[in-house]
Amino acid sequence: MYTLITGGTVVSSTGSGQADVLIEDEKIVAVLEPGSGVLGATFLQGVDRRIDATGKYVIPGGIDAHTHMEMPFGGTFASDTFETGTRAAAWGGTTTIVDFSVQYTGEDVLERFAAWHDKAAGKCAIDYAFHQIIGGVDDVSLAAMDTLIDEGVSSFKLFMAYKDVFLSDDGQIVRAMQRASRNGGLLMMHAENGSVIDVLQQQALERGETDPIHHGLTRPWQTEEEATYRAIRLSELTGAPLYVVHVSAKQAAMRIAEARDTGQNVFGETCPQYLWLSLEEQLGAPGFEGSKWVCSTPLRARVDGHQEHMWQALRTNDLQLVSTDHCPFCMKGQKELGRNSFAAIPNGIGSVEHRLDLVYQGVVTGKISLSRWVEICCTTPARMFGMYGTKGVIAPGADADVVVYDPAGRTRISVDTHHMNLDYSAWEGFEIDGHVDTVISRGLVVIDDGEYHGHAGHGKYIRRGLSQYLI
Amino acid sequence: MYTLITGGTVVSSTGSGQADVLIEDEKIVAVLEPGSGVLGATFLQGVDRRIDATGKYVIPGGIDAHTHMEMPFGGTFASDTFETGTRAAAWGGTTTIVDFSVQYTGEDVLERFAAWHDKAAGKCAIDYAFHQIIGGVDDVSLAAMDTLIDEGVSSFKLFMAYKDVFLSDDGQIVRAMQRASRNGGLLMMHAENGSVIDVLQQQALERGETDPIHHGLTRPWQTEEEATYRAIRLSELTGAPLYVVHVSAKQAAMRIAEARDTGQNVFGETCPQYLWLSLEEQLGAPGFEGSKWVCSTPLRARVDGHQEHMWQALRTNDLQLVSTDHCPFCMKGQKELGRNSFAAIPNGIGSVEHRLDLVYQGVVTGKISLSRWVEICCTTPARMFGMYGTKGVIAPGADADVVVYDPAGRTRISVDTHHMNLDYSAWEGFEIDGHVDTVISRGLVVIDDGEYHGHAGHGKYIRRGLSQYLI
Amino acid sequence: MYTLITGGTVVSSTGSGQADVLIEDEKIVAVLEPGSGVLGATFLQGVDRRIDATGKYVIPGGIDAHTHMEMPFGGTFASDTFETGTRAAAWGGTTTIVDFSVQYTGEDVLERFAAWHDKAAGKCAIDYAFHQIIGGVDDVSLAAMDTLIDEGVSSFKLFMAYKDVFLSDDGQIVRAMQRASRNGGLLMMHAENGSVIDVLQQQALERGETDPIHHGLTRPWQTEEEATYRAIRLSELTGAPLYVVHVSAKQAAMRIAEARDTGQNVFGETCPQYLWLSLEEQLGAPGFEGSKWVCSTPLRARVDGHQEHMWQALRTNDLQLVSTDHCPFCMKGQKELGRNSFAAIPNGIGSVEHRLDLVYQGVVTGKISLSRWVEICCTTPARMFGMYGTKGVIAPGADADVVVYDPAGRTRISVDTHHMNLDYSAWEGFEIDGHVDTVISRGLVVIDDGEYHGHAGHGKYIRRGLSQYLI
Amino acid sequence: MYTLITGGTVVSSTGSGQADVLIEDEKIVAVLEPGSGVLGATFLQGVDRRIDATGKYVIPGGIDAHTHMEMPFGGTFASDTFETGTRAAAWGGTTTIVDFSVQYTGEDVLERFAAWHDKAAGKCAIDYAFHQIIGGVDDVSLAAMDTLIDEGVSSFKLFMAYKDVFLSDDGQIVRAMQRASRNGGLLMMHAENGSVIDVLQQQALERGETDPIHHGLTRPWQTEEEATYRAIRLSELTGAPLYVVHVSAKQAAMRIAEARDTGQNVFGETCPQYLWLSLEEQLGAPGFEGSKWVCSTPLRARVDGHQEHMWQALRTNDLQLVSTDHCPFCMKGQKELGRNSFAAIPNGIGSVEHRLDLVYQGVVTGKISLSRWVEICCTTPARMFGMYGTKGVIAPGADADVVVYDPAGRTRISVDTHHMNLDYSAWEGFEIDGHVDTVISRGLVVIDDGEYHGHAGHGKYIRRGLSQYLI
Repeated sequence: MYTLITGGTVVSSTGSGQADVLIEDEKIVAVLEPGSGVLGATFLQGVDRRIDATGKYVIPGGIDAHTHMEMPFGGTFASDTFETGTRAAAWGGTTTIVDFSVQYTGEDVLERFAAWHDKAAGKCAIDYAFHQIIGGVDDVSLAAMDTLIDEGVSSFKLFMAYKDVFLSDDGQIVRAMQRASRNGGLLMMHAENGSVIDVLQQQALERGETDPIHHGLTRPWQTEEEATYRAIRLSELTGAPLYVVHVSAKQAAMRIAEARDTGQNVFGETCPQYLWLSLEEQLGAPGFEGSKWVCSTPLRARVDGHQEHMWQALRTNDLQLVSTDHCPFCMKGQKELGRNSFAAIPNGIGSVEHRLDLVYQGVVTGKISLSRWVEICCTTPARMFGMYGTKGVIAPGADADVVVYDPAGRTRISVDTHHMNLDYSAWEGFEIDGHVDTVISRGLVVIDDGEYHGHAGHGKYIRRGLSQYLI
Repeated sequence: MYTLITGGTVVSSTGSGQADVLIEDEKIVAVLEPGSGVLGATFLQGVDRRIDATGKYVIPGGIDAHTHMEMPFGGTFASDTFETGTRAAAWGGTTTIVDFSVQYTGEDVLERFAAWHDKAAGKCAIDYAFHQIIGGVDDVSLAAMDTLIDEGVSSFKLFMAYKDVFLSDDGQIVRAMQRASRNGGLLMMHAENGSVIDVLQQQALERGETDPIHHGLTRPWQTEEEATYRAIRLSELTGAPLYVVHVSAKQAAMRIAEARDTGQNVFGETCPQYLWLSLEEQLGAPGFEGSKWVCSTPLRARVDGHQEHMWQALRTNDLQLVSTDHCPFCMKGQKELGRNSFAAIPNGIGSVEHRLDLVYQGVVTGKISLSRWVEICCTTPARMFGMYGTKGVIAPGADADVVVYDPAGRTRISVDTHHMNLDYSAWEGFEIDGHVDTVISRGLVVIDDGEYHGHAGHGKYIRRGLSQYLI
Repeated sequence: MYTLITGGTVVSSTGSGQADVLIEDEKIVAVLEPGSGVLGATFLQGVDRRIDATGKYVIPGGIDAHTHMEMPFGGTFASDTFETGTRAAAWGGTTTIVDFSVQYTGEDVLERFAAWHDKAAGKCAIDYAFHQIIGGVDDVSLAAMDTLIDEGVSSFKLFMAYKDVFLSDDGQIVRAMQRASRNGGLLMMHAENGSVIDVLQQQALERGETDPIHHGLTRPWQTEEEATYRAIRLSELTGAPLYVVHVSAKQAAMRIAEARDTGQNVFGETCPQYLWLSLEEQLGAPGFEGSKWVCSTPLRARVDGHQEHMWQALRTNDLQLVSTDHCPFCMKGQKELGRNSFAAIPNGIGSVEHRLDLVYQGVVTGKISLSRWVEICCTTPARMFGMYGTKGVIAPGADADVVVYDPAGRTRISVDTHHMNLDYSAWEGFEIDGHVDTVISRGLVVIDDGEYHGHAGHGKYIRRGLSQYLI
Repeated sequence: MYTLITGGTVVSSTGSGQADVLIEDEKIVAVLEPGSGVLGATFLQGVDRRIDATGKYVIPGGIDAHTHMEMPFGGTFASDTFETGTRAAAWGGTTTIVDFSVQYTGEDVLERFAAWHDKAAGKCAIDYAFHQIIGGVDDVSLAAMDTLIDEGVSSFKLFMAYKDVFLSDDGQIVRAMQRASRNGGLLMMHAENGSVIDVLQQQALERGETDPIHHGLTRPWQTEEEATYRAIRLSELTGAPLYVVHVSAKQAAMRIAEARDTGQNVFGETCPQYLWLSLEEQLGAPGFEGSKWVCSTPLRARVDGHQEHMWQALRTNDLQLVSTDHCPFCMKGQKELGRNSFAAIPNGIGSVEHRLDLVYQGVVTGKISLSRWVEICCTTPARMFGMYGTKGVIAPGADADVVVYDPAGRTRISVDTHHMNLDYSAWEGFEIDGHVDTVISRGLVVIDDGEYHGHAGHGKYIRRGLSQYLI
């Protein structure tokens, strides 16, 4: 079956131009001079379906490289299942997620990986892949890293916080990095100094400081920056590449930039919440309201310019991509567990549906270019995580994951209209000067004209190769 | 007329994949799933010519953004005319040059620009564009900048050296930058502290130090680094973007990197000679031999690691592109003018024919990736200088400037085989593990199978827009 | 004749302790355990005069290493003569000044030096020495540097601003630095990019911006920082030590700190006006009021934190001392020359009388320690400029230049009470929590109990040796 | 009893001059114009003893702020007792040591402090004071910090290495720093990332790498630099001053310099072994020889320039002082415990006798000035650790701790002649162009004319105040 997207402006990470895109079944097979039938009318007659993209952008489907569907956390679970979460992602123009298979300290890595496969299998509206969290570095889990690379999992996340749950000490980090420097894996790091945060939290609670804002105040930028620097230095010591997740402090971003200046393979992502939201305005909202925005790393103070610095770092490629760290918890029954103590509030914000829109608004407001939007949201995630060619680009041979985005459209975000399984929106009332019109996942139109045409199980597991950003 | 390039690996700045490229007359009209006729046999029958690229790379034609054809210098002229120089460029896979129209101090800018047009018109084998050298910033030349932008010249080069010939003082630089910050032009800077160099030269000559190596020793890295820092700071003061030409000192590259880290729009190019050649080995060759490599900025000491740092900066995008600064002078009658004094040796090296090869060798030796090669040599020059879309990319609607590059081929550089009008080769004996097989310029096959099929006058003047790298 | 200062706290640059100070004629001959007669009553009987310093600080006389008495500037002269200026200095606890002998471009250095000697001879209330301004680097003035060192002038000031008056271009700076690196002289630099400032001034005036604040706005921090960096780099190139005068921009201070971190012999002074006054409050005062504070480098914006950074840099020894750059011009007949144009306002502020007090207030407010006050104002100036041992320390063999400072006293600065020949005070209304009680110059009590006991001609010319800070 | 040191050059931290020094019993009572009897012959008759220092330097007694007498380590004890160690110190011109009272993890701080007092009481040839090692931060030890300050112990050392023995995790460090920021204590840090080192050691041993050089190779500079940066950042977070002990890596020194540039109260010491010895030459000596120089932090590679950088940092005051970290272990029965594994070699070098000499050789070779020698070895240690006034200066009221040092003398270091209880010398064969002639401790001549005149028990415990370097 042939589908032709006509009349649109195809935007890549380097520029844009008018072109038609021809899809055969699940693949893109040609990018064509628009309006032309190339070699005659015969061609046009063979097209089964035409999608008119006149006046609109045609971009590769979005890739959200950091999600936590159904993630168990403190006795509860992230409220989106692979089914609800991937469906919401599709609504927002994301056609691939990379979720985290989780090994808590004490568990068996490969067993957990198998369990995560079971959770996702047959549920997803769009394609999915996995990173693996290593919550306990030892001989067994190190060996498992090699196995997982064969299984298409080429990136491994460690934590410098969450003692007895996820925390790797520096010696463990070194061992994992040594392994990655040999097997080609990419080490991802949750860079916060948990040991210091634990003390600051306990001291705050002892002083009776229980409101949500204290979640942020007990995780000052120094705890992120120090851990980031430490991870960079250990990366330098071992020769392993490093990818720092959810960067929110400008000082952490500066350390990453400096490391890159010396030629180190260090990368960083930030998230929409660190681009638009702040400690003062959201996390510091009156009463328990701030709990909506409790996530780690925390929102940072706008007065210190962290948000503008994140945009700048995206522009200068000192940060390479935007993921959501999607990890939604409902107010009812979940966030409210922390009414008496910020430390008991489940950590996470739900944004998987809004990433493309929220970053696009940076194009509208002049913070980044149109091409950079596509690079940050679509192309670089594919390259960074070993999927480029199949994903992340509009080119013959690639999966037909395509989004038609309307710059004349308008999107208003609200809990009333979103599709995530979440009883509030962290983005309530945000307005975007653009709109996801049509979303195609491996040739299947899943979103069109405000309707969902997809189905659970359409999404396939993607075996990823090694990071293509390092080559 | 339809041409189909089949079986090759199309390489872009983000990755590569198998694809066929369809050309209609002067334009690319489709990129297609290889081997497929898309919608049937009808398609294939319409193709007039097929170029088999099996096992080879298909890349956008190279863009050399820094050449000086027939440039007058110290009573003589660069030995390549637009005719010989562009033909040599074609042999090396370069399909567009951006040459410098020259205003010496005291001349009229627009008059000189007209003269340069006259020189090039009807002579070029490939497409060409112009930057404008402003050798005398005053009200007239500042006004001319606006006019020139309308004429397709959106970049202007100033000099911090060469007193009474090209030199702008800091106040003049500020005035030109203020203009550029308003009219969208890109300021290019020859960043060397000429005032200091003049003193060091005179002192060396007074000490009887006349050999070619003293050309380098009297232009120590500090003279480049200081000027680069000064230009960056003036750029910061005025808000004008800055492009530093022919960076050769690692310290200068570091200052550029630091400026970029703060979000400044500062860019830099380096040249093949700074990647491969050195002060000790080439410029310091016995007797007058070193004169072959007298160019400014000079070759730097390998012992200090400048060459490796240039590669690193290219990899990390702290330098954005490689141009040649092609400015050839023959040994006989030209270089030999400086037998008694290095200061009288015409400055320049001829490399326009070898850029793609010389940078590709960095891919072979693991210094940069295949995609980065294309980005550095083809895509970024187009974006930086306002030609992307027409040039610098293989996509429908672009000019059919295409190179078929054979990674299994081999190229040996020699004065005996090169096509530049130059009686020696700065690259004599260099061997490249790759080969430019076929070169297409706006649909015309100019190089194929070791033969030149082009002709003077095929090349057109390209009106450039504003830099697309700033958007 | 023997004088004994008893009961005071002697403060040095490293600490303080109770001690009596014994003076014999013009020299200090002993520092003694207080209250003790060392070896008996005989000792006490021999003392001719006793000064009770109980409860007070006893410190070395202040050294103001940057003054401009009777300096010709734009057709007028700095309003303090050597007679009035040194008397005012004495009132403020300064017992040595280092003034600038001035060579304007085109003049003969040694001739001017002789003229300056003539101006000062027989006029000074306290000791004096000279730096030499080199307003025209050429073979003659370079040779004069050697001669001057023999004459006790071991420091030479160049300007990077004031074209055709003082300006040295970078080549000239290099030549002077080369000379200094051989003869041991210390290069002092007025670090402002005059070429840029000239353009900004002219543009401001063309826009009708004539008020005093535009003096500051047309000398933005970049013009100081860039020149400072350039001077540092040229110092690095030539191996000459560098002393940057009147640092006011925090960015310039940072560049100095970085150079020092790499082991370069780079030093910097700041002035009281850069510690306490600002662009917004003083230079931006309504109407022509701001002219009182027109000096170069200019006062900086408090909102950008320059003032606090100057204090910090003094604390961390990134800046080494505080001089006044005393260069007073009266409102009447002098400052008012610039009513129609800030560019015509004579540049300078009068502070020679208040330096010790104004820096001491930093001790009171916790910005620096008591010892650091003495180091900054007395000891380091002596070491930096080759007078230590004779000056700058309370020790046997040193000149008896001593100040008794009362921390319980109080000083209110006003034109009504100051002793400078100046019809306004830049410090009107400033209150200091301390007071200069007694000032001794080479054994002569010049100030005591609110009365002046000195006389013109007491002050002697001090032949300085090479900087002791470099050893 | 009166002692007069005549004819010498008194050297202070700012300069030097001819002066006589008068001692009455245990105190200095006067510094006098040499040759003069101040007020007549009566004075001279009262002097009981005269020490002729003609042609020699008279300096404050040395202070070694980092020694470990009788320190228990891995089942053995540092081979110098307080008796032998302080006697050896006296031979080398050191008149005060600050030793470390040790709390191992699990012990009671105040109990250990009492035990250390018992060890030292009545044994010392010279004065002594204590720092306290906190090997287990908890509520009890934090409270003990306040008590100890009252006892004259104002500095507390934490370790970032040695798990289960000394190690504090980052949360514990923060708690101790918070306490110090309130009680005025100075936090000293052993900055090495023990967690990483433990892994590297185990891996080396598993590979059969047991020679002494692997002690150094498993503690690469990154482990020191990272820990130093972390400590600096935690210091910044808590507002506590920080003193980094035994800095050996240039990168660590750079981080300290950068922190100081921002105004942070961060200080660092280095040791003679890091100034003169290297990984290649000493630690890498053939066979088991290298064990002589096993200490932590380890000797660094000369090829990387660490040693020269230490000298530079001392010169620029980015490092403030030189201590020995004296911790001697004999080859026989102690070092040889590690014949089969570098990890079992007791860590430590004995240098308490040679510090003044080894740093003085830096004056001879032009690395630092004469004044800086006194500042580094005598004055700053007193100020840093709250003893200035009593110690560290030649001034009335100070303890009569004085060294007469002969620049025309010569010292050859050897196990055959040294006085430490150590069966080898880490400095065997080193020659110093100077000599400790006479050493006076609180008025008692302990060393003179090559003979020891002191006795155990002369040395008193010094109650220290808060650091005077912070004021």
